[in-house]
Amino acid sequence: MGAVTGAVTGASMAGLLMESEIAEQPARWADQLGRDRGLRPIVDRIRAYGPRFVTFIARGTSDHAATYGRYAADVLCGLPGGSWSPSTTTLYGARPDLRGCLAVAISQSGGSPDLSASLVAAREGGALTLAITNDPASPLATAAELHLDLQAGPELAVAATKSFTAELLALARLFLELSGTAEPALARLPEWGHAVLSDPAAAETIAATVDRFSGERTVLTGRGYSAAVAHEGALKLMETCYVSASGFSAADLLHGPIAILDPGVHAIAFTSEGPAGRAMLPVIDRIRSSGAPLLTIGGTTADHDTVRLPEGVPELLAPLLQVLPVQAFALSLARSRGLDPDAPRGLLKVTETR
Amino acid sequence: MGAVTGAVTGASMAGLLMESEIAEQPARWADQLGRDRGLRPIVDRIRAYGPRFVTFIARGTSDHAATYGRYAADVLCGLPGGSWSPSTTTLYGARPDLRGCLAVAISQSGGSPDLSASLVAAREGGALTLAITNDPASPLATAAELHLDLQAGPELAVAATKSFTAELLALARLFLELSGTAEPALARLPEWGHAVLSDPAAAETIAATVDRFSGERTVLTGRGYSAAVAHEGALKLMETCYVSASGFSAADLLHGPIAILDPGVHAIAFTSEGPAGRAMLPVIDRIRSSGAPLLTIGGTTADHDTVRLPEGVPELLAPLLQVLPVQAFALSLARSRGLDPDAPRGLLKVTETR
Repeated sequence: MGAVTGAVTGASMAGLLMESEIAEQPARWADQLGRDRGLRPIVDRIRAYGPRFVTFIARGTSDHAATYGRYAADVLCGLPGGSWSPSTTTLYGARPDLRGCLAVAISQSGGSPDLSASLVAAREGGALTLAITNDPASPLATAAELHLDLQAGPELAVAATKSFTAELLALARLFLELSGTAEPALARLPEWGHAVLSDPAAAETIAATVDRFSGERTVLTGRGYSAAVAHEGALKLMETCYVSASGFSAADLLHGPIAILDPGVHAIAFTSEGPAGRAMLPVIDRIRSSGAPLLTIGGTTADHDTVRLPEGVPELLAPLLQVLPVQAFALSLARSRGLDPDAPRGLLKVTETR
Repeated sequence: MGAVTGAVTGASMAGLLMESEIAEQPARWADQLGRDRGLRPIVDRIRAYGPRFVTFIARGTSDHAATYGRYAADVLCGLPGGSWSPSTTTLYGARPDLRGCLAVAISQSGGSPDLSASLVAAREGGALTLAITNDPASPLATAAELHLDLQAGPELAVAATKSFTAELLALARLFLELSGTAEPALARLPEWGHAVLSDPAAAETIAATVDRFSGERTVLTGRGYSAAVAHEGALKLMETCYVSASGFSAADLLHGPIAILDPGVHAIAFTSEGPAGRAMLPVIDRIRSSGAPLLTIGGTTADHDTVRLPEGVPELLAPLLQVLPVQAFALSLARSRGLDPDAPRGLLKVTETR
């Protein structure tokens, strides 16, 4: 168990599932990187198909992974991307022409009926279908022509953590391989993940932020690949702490929502080394000038408002590390409020929307 | 001026621009429907090009219109859709292969540099480019091969209202025409809009909701075409009232965010006559059981918690009417709090992101 998640252990026995699933992420990444089950034949099939565009079918946490995947497909492979709302099929019976489309459905459980219905419709519409799930025997996995296994092990906490980073890793590997790009930093991810989770300075910053987080409102923001982390971090805080948390790409934040920031709203900003991280600097200045208390994740200097990430992390891979402190923060904040993040009110592990 | 926006007039002189722009929407729709400047040749060109998919380039309010457009393209034309993040171009220099793609950029001002840069990149990548703006002389309009003029007249309030519904109408007309579908209800929109804005029962419900809206947190939700209204309504409330407002498709709401609902969070749900409206009914039951105070927009029974819409509105067109009461609610709530919705803190009319 890392110091980051262990920061408030002992205060409560609640959230043990979420805590252990946060802690095991680097080991699951190592599993996925080490036991390469079937990525190569999947990429070969996609190359032979020759997609003109890619569309994602997903909901909730997996839809945030899809946001990341859409970005990666565009930047790495020059493949324009979209997301396909299952409800065009399930509500209106839409049957689009999807020849030339790679349809990627992402779901931890692979069990929601609307995702399977959409995937079947996509396949019937001529798309090459790929399911990315944590259960090769799930309806979604068996409905797709291709399946990529997350190998994340059973996820039992209602709030998804390890399946999210396993999805990010699977998507990064998929589009790197498809683009023919080697990324040696992939191999360092488990070591970096361990470093973040066991960093005492990070644990201290998270604990201090929990202490100072008195309100019910927060805004999370990042750019480029990290916009997905802003959305996912907001979902974790909503699910486990019941706070009003909104995630925005930094560009969208400037187009309106920034007006809500004042000393009563806590802000969390994700930065990184690269173009998106540099583009965050003026946004961070705007946030600071609003008076909103700010936690920065990814800065290179460690102070009480910054969780530092290891140096040299490429922006493509930064989201896997940036989300760890937010998961730990949500866990700690829930515990400090006497909530059990393993059993949020009104939620089940598998959400069946139609 | 309709009764709905006039409900709290006199309490403040603030927000006069927003008030008049809300009120003139039905007249602007009539303008757009009556003076059909150039839709037919645009559709002919798109047909000749034969797009395989459509991608939208937009931010803020216009991105919510894009969400609606993506849905309409899929349901009406069987055209899969995506949204293209300008930052893949501006941050990472991505140059995707966009042959076979209809790229639709949407912007009231047509003035943000990142949108123009993306549109130029899309055109260089082989896309057929269409700009939908309120200014035919704008950089975005002139960079695109095709331009569709919103004909909404100058929009001066920082919070966009009439440009949003003009964008929805332009997109509905575009994809109806492209699909060869006649929609006689289009012609009734101005009359329906007047009816909603001048409905005394609606004005009373909005005023009562303003009185009871004591907190800083709200959740808006709709399904299908109306998910776009949930997102746009949330943005209006953030921009003008500084409340933490989150918009969700109802399916996404069930995948986690519903946990935040309790008596301290106000909910707004959009319903309609049709499959999406029927799919909202169990969601509304879930919201009620959380104890969250609920305003329903689009119900067919009028009570103090429901703003009724005219009967017979097809779901494709319902968003134009559903958004009117939310715009009026944001205006009234801002005034009741002593804020000027015409000049939100930290925002300018044209946001220049890069």
